[in-house]
Amino acid sequence: MTLRIGIIGVGTMGSDHAKRLSTRINGATLAGVCDLIPERAQKMADLYGAKVYATGKDLIDSPDIDAVVVATLPHETHEQFVLEAIKQKKYVLSEKPLTTSAAGCRRVVDAEIAGGKRLVQVGFMRRFDQGYQEIKQAIQNKTYGEPLLIHCAHRNEDTPLNYNSDMAIVETAIHEVDVLHWLLGEDYDSVFCFLPKKQTRYTHKGLHDPQIIEMDTKSGVHIDLEVFVCNHMGYDINCRVVCEEGEIALHTPQNTIVKVAESERESIPNDFTVRFKEAYDREMQAFVDGINADQLTGPTSWDGLIACVTCDALFASRDEGGVRKKIELPETPSFFQEQ
Amino acid sequence: MTLRIGIIGVGTMGSDHAKRLSTRINGATLAGVCDLIPERAQKMADLYGAKVYATGKDLIDSPDIDAVVVATLPHETHEQFVLEAIKQKKYVLSEKPLTTSAAGCRRVVDAEIAGGKRLVQVGFMRRFDQGYQEIKQAIQNKTYGEPLLIHCAHRNEDTPLNYNSDMAIVETAIHEVDVLHWLLGEDYDSVFCFLPKKQTRYTHKGLHDPQIIEMDTKSGVHIDLEVFVCNHMGYDINCRVVCEEGEIALHTPQNTIVKVAESERESIPNDFTVRFKEAYDREMQAFVDGINADQLTGPTSWDGLIACVTCDALFASRDEGGVRKKIELPETPSFFQEQ
Amino acid sequence: MTLRIGIIGVGTMGSDHAKRLSTRINGATLAGVCDLIPERAQKMADLYGAKVYATGKDLIDSPDIDAVVVATLPHETHEQFVLEAIKQKKYVLSEKPLTTSAAGCRRVVDAEIAGGKRLVQVGFMRRFDQGYQEIKQAIQNKTYGEPLLIHCAHRNEDTPLNYNSDMAIVETAIHEVDVLHWLLGEDYDSVFCFLPKKQTRYTHKGLHDPQIIEMDTKSGVHIDLEVFVCNHMGYDINCRVVCEEGEIALHTPQNTIVKVAESERESIPNDFTVRFKEAYDREMQAFVDGINADQLTGPTSWDGLIACVTCDALFASRDEGGVRKKIELPETPSFFQEQ
Amino acid sequence: MTLRIGIIGVGTMGSDHAKRLSTRINGATLAGVCDLIPERAQKMADLYGAKVYATGKDLIDSPDIDAVVVATLPHETHEQFVLEAIKQKKYVLSEKPLTTSAAGCRRVVDAEIAGGKRLVQVGFMRRFDQGYQEIKQAIQNKTYGEPLLIHCAHRNEDTPLNYNSDMAIVETAIHEVDVLHWLLGEDYDSVFCFLPKKQTRYTHKGLHDPQIIEMDTKSGVHIDLEVFVCNHMGYDINCRVVCEEGEIALHTPQNTIVKVAESERESIPNDFTVRFKEAYDREMQAFVDGINADQLTGPTSWDGLIACVTCDALFASRDEGGVRKKIELPETPSFFQEQ
Ligand SMILES: [Mg+2]
Ligand SMILES: [Mg+2]
Ligand SMILES: [Mg+2]
Ligand SMILES: [Mg+2]
Repeated sequence: MTLRIGIIGVGTMGSDHAKRLSTRINGATLAGVCDLIPERAQKMADLYGAKVYATGKDLIDSPDIDAVVVATLPHETHEQFVLEAIKQKKYVLSEKPLTTSAAGCRRVVDAEIAGGKRLVQVGFMRRFDQGYQEIKQAIQNKTYGEPLLIHCAHRNEDTPLNYNSDMAIVETAIHEVDVLHWLLGEDYDSVFCFLPKKQTRYTHKGLHDPQIIEMDTKSGVHIDLEVFVCNHMGYDINCRVVCEEGEIALHTPQNTIVKVAESERESIPNDFTVRFKEAYDREMQAFVDGINADQLTGPTSWDGLIACVTCDALFASRDEGGVRKKIELPETPSFFQEQ
Repeated sequence: MTLRIGIIGVGTMGSDHAKRLSTRINGATLAGVCDLIPERAQKMADLYGAKVYATGKDLIDSPDIDAVVVATLPHETHEQFVLEAIKQKKYVLSEKPLTTSAAGCRRVVDAEIAGGKRLVQVGFMRRFDQGYQEIKQAIQNKTYGEPLLIHCAHRNEDTPLNYNSDMAIVETAIHEVDVLHWLLGEDYDSVFCFLPKKQTRYTHKGLHDPQIIEMDTKSGVHIDLEVFVCNHMGYDINCRVVCEEGEIALHTPQNTIVKVAESERESIPNDFTVRFKEAYDREMQAFVDGINADQLTGPTSWDGLIACVTCDALFASRDEGGVRKKIELPETPSFFQEQ
Repeated sequence: MTLRIGIIGVGTMGSDHAKRLSTRINGATLAGVCDLIPERAQKMADLYGAKVYATGKDLIDSPDIDAVVVATLPHETHEQFVLEAIKQKKYVLSEKPLTTSAAGCRRVVDAEIAGGKRLVQVGFMRRFDQGYQEIKQAIQNKTYGEPLLIHCAHRNEDTPLNYNSDMAIVETAIHEVDVLHWLLGEDYDSVFCFLPKKQTRYTHKGLHDPQIIEMDTKSGVHIDLEVFVCNHMGYDINCRVVCEEGEIALHTPQNTIVKVAESERESIPNDFTVRFKEAYDREMQAFVDGINADQLTGPTSWDGLIACVTCDALFASRDEGGVRKKIELPETPSFFQEQ
Repeated sequence: MTLRIGIIGVGTMGSDHAKRLSTRINGATLAGVCDLIPERAQKMADLYGAKVYATGKDLIDSPDIDAVVVATLPHETHEQFVLEAIKQKKYVLSEKPLTTSAAGCRRVVDAEIAGGKRLVQVGFMRRFDQGYQEIKQAIQNKTYGEPLLIHCAHRNEDTPLNYNSDMAIVETAIHEVDVLHWLLGEDYDSVFCFLPKKQTRYTHKGLHDPQIIEMDTKSGVHIDLEVFVCNHMGYDINCRVVCEEGEIALHTPQNTIVKVAESERESIPNDFTVRFKEAYDREMQAFVDGINADQLTGPTSWDGLIACVTCDALFASRDEGGVRKKIELPETPSFFQEQ
């Protein structure tokens, strides 16, 4: 049985998912699309043989659609489609962030629990990157002893002029917010956000760049994270986990190495679609496989909530000039614990 | 339309292909299997919901099978199944080597030409490795000028006792024999095989290890290849292409890098299924996509023939004590030139 | 003219300097030694043909000694010998820290200024490491734009049981305290020291390990420094300077690279004498060359003072539970500005 | 006692040695210089406080000169000065090659033996490189089992127009000819030189570039060496020793590593004085220390002879179109065996 998937929103992310589903994923097919810009939807439909729906609700409600991918902009719009999918008891993969407020995440979480079945996977696709998975394995196996510190950097080559300091947290750093507590298998205790006085000349009004984030977990692992989104050297994702007997770090994937012009060079990709192409594929395959096994395994709506609560605390820390803020998380509902 | 594929021979390679088709490939499904050991076939059939056929011929001839994968042992048996598939006008992916003799390859080539349609893809899956593809791109674009030299090593961690010096050429070095002339886009002019006096103490009777192979192309690119199959350090594949203005070399894929015990370590895989997992996936996806587009793009039966003729020349060189041997290749039939 | 140098204190550091002077330094010779343990002094004297002096004062005052190296323990004892050398108008290289208190450093600074001539070089030998020098050059030339952030780690493999949390700052982190403001060519504005809750199981009573230090400079460059002195993986010194258009980082010196046991390995040294052997040689050669040119160029007693003031601020920050502390430095005397 | 050294020939190499002796070497001083171009000699004398001698013979015969460095061009002129030094019973360091003919080397060897004392050190300074020394240590200790193969490349960025194919062997590859048999501690059995048809467009008339050299030792270790002297990427020296259980290879020394322009870069030096600066220093220090201990330990005149005999065999192989040539070496005189 081939799973029929519909995508709501076929901008950059949505059309990437459309291609992925149609050419690289096993066991599923692109069955429907919709978009506020009808031509964009029509183009995807023509390219991959899918049907165009007039609205997201029409797509979700259609008997010809088994599961839904939500990739709309702005992120606030995710919530309504995810709630509709839950109502229709259809599996749904929502791009991250799940929504942009803790309250919105809470509504999704509550609806999902009320429905009695895990239906939502949130697009924290770093968890599907082989590098992070190897690190998580080493931590779980205590291969190098207990983890003590994590040093991270999230570096984008450049950003558009409408990208601001808040987005550097809630759209960019949110990846580390999610993946690091998942790596460690524990919750954050407190966080801290600090704006160093010296900024890059490549930044623009409204964007403080770089920013420094620190997070401490309940067990006392200390994390620092450089967020540097106009770094002008490449899309460079660093994660070094310092353990009692060794350090395990991400290696940027390389297929070749070049000697030229008096240097030997490994490459740094220029954007996230290159760096995490395989992670996105594996995220979608996991969604499809999870549906076929009737048991999702990826990031939950609760993970979406944790991320939003943590980002809110980072904003508060930053706005108070770099004060350590406790994270106040409600207890994890048992509904999400078996995961 | 989902392509229905049957696999003949579900030993190591065949069962790997069965899993690949059933869980990671888009647009195809495992529809049938057969094996000399019926339990082995039944196991795959149960696992992936496929039908068991009594013989390879039954499978090929079945109207429920659209295309065939031949993964039988010994390699001599490939020929009959490939010929039967050609007769039935079905696409067929044959594991490498296509057969073990130039004469056998010739029969396949002739049958395919007589049928008037490219139906055969040979399993030289290195061509689908992203590293080799990046190298080929750099050569084609003359990014670093003209290629002049290629230094290679093909290193296996260990081999079984029935593995012998001939197999080091026709089963192991054959990967480089194929991929290097493809990288360069030209044919070999002469080859050379030399057995260094000093061997590893980990070798066994019948196996001279390591061996040295040299190949020169028509344009004069000089290639050296270390074949070292009991190297005891890992499955380590090296390919460094020296050009006029730079060198481009394979980088063994790494997701993480570790500091431990007074060293910083990148990993070397322990076997080819780890090193080339993605290349095998992409080979199969290309086969499926090629069929769906009704135009195969992968290695042809003519490539299978070139490899066998080259291996024969390497045997002759070695047996005459390291004499340079001209490669005598018939002209490429126009049938294979559009590729 | 060969410079006649005397060493006061020939324990680990002093005997290392004795060997260095006698076998690797140009233009100087080991002329005298003294030590609280007479046998230790005699051994060095016999080995390298030097004279034994009964006291440090005797050595300094001797007409047969042109310049002095102070390598005594505990570090508090440096002050008296440095002051005596200044009194005798002899050049003196003091091991770091110059003394253990800002007040002591101030006395040395004042005596040197009163004498009217730069005579003191402090043993901050990181400044002579080729890696740090290349980084400083890149910063000065703005090769990658302005520096914005520095990420550092100072990792020792292990420490003796009498090594405590204070020493991790005043004996270990003090190297970074000195070298980083020298790299940037500016003073610190504020510092911060934080003890993460989770510690390594290899630590001992009295030692909080690892510790986190942060320093911000006047221009606003933000620095973080992991101090981890029982890391059990090696003596691993990291310094990554993030600039507007690139990152320049230390590469641990390597002469060979090894493939073994399914990994490719660069080495991490096991201690500082291996990592910084050449830096110590170059430090001593610079001291000798500076004397011969009658103009010292290495770290000054003022640099010694800055380091102590900064360490005091780090202690205060730590003891108040991780509060950002302003650095209150008097203005640099003009005496030290021509340097 | 400071050794008084005189240098004959202060062109590129000689003036480099003059600076080295005057600023970085312990226990020796530059006492005299001479050169066919008197101004050149005067400049060095003025710079370092040495005396100018009218002729090499005058310098050698002077009672004010304890030992001699011969750095004259053309290399044929080394012989007369080395013979004169032997006659005067003075230690002499001759730049490589000792002379350009086996017969000339033989005359030096015979004179030295007749004099009854080892006085000659030949400037094969690769033996003093820390990388090669680590490799030799690993081979001697059988850290990775027995050595089986060595893959080398000797790559110069560019060469002047008067540099020809012969010089690529006798001035360039001669470094590997010397250092590789020293690494292995055994003599060559046969050699081979081959000119690949395809050459770089950066070569010039009279220079076949690149060239391929192969050497097999008596025990059967097989060596291949790429000599590529207009490679346009940097001065890149490779040496990978493949052993039974691992590979140990040179790592080009790096003090820093840079991320810039979508790549992470280690540097390749642009010339040999950068790459081997420390090896030259250590070579000279070993010469000085050897004299002071009255026992030279560096490369002997016999090593100079072996190198010339091997180069002659490489010429013969090449001129006969790539034929394997046996190396016919007389037995090592006992005079050179204690080394
Ligand atoms: Mg990969
Ligand atoms: Mg790498
Ligand atoms: Mg070095
Ligand atoms: Mg390196």
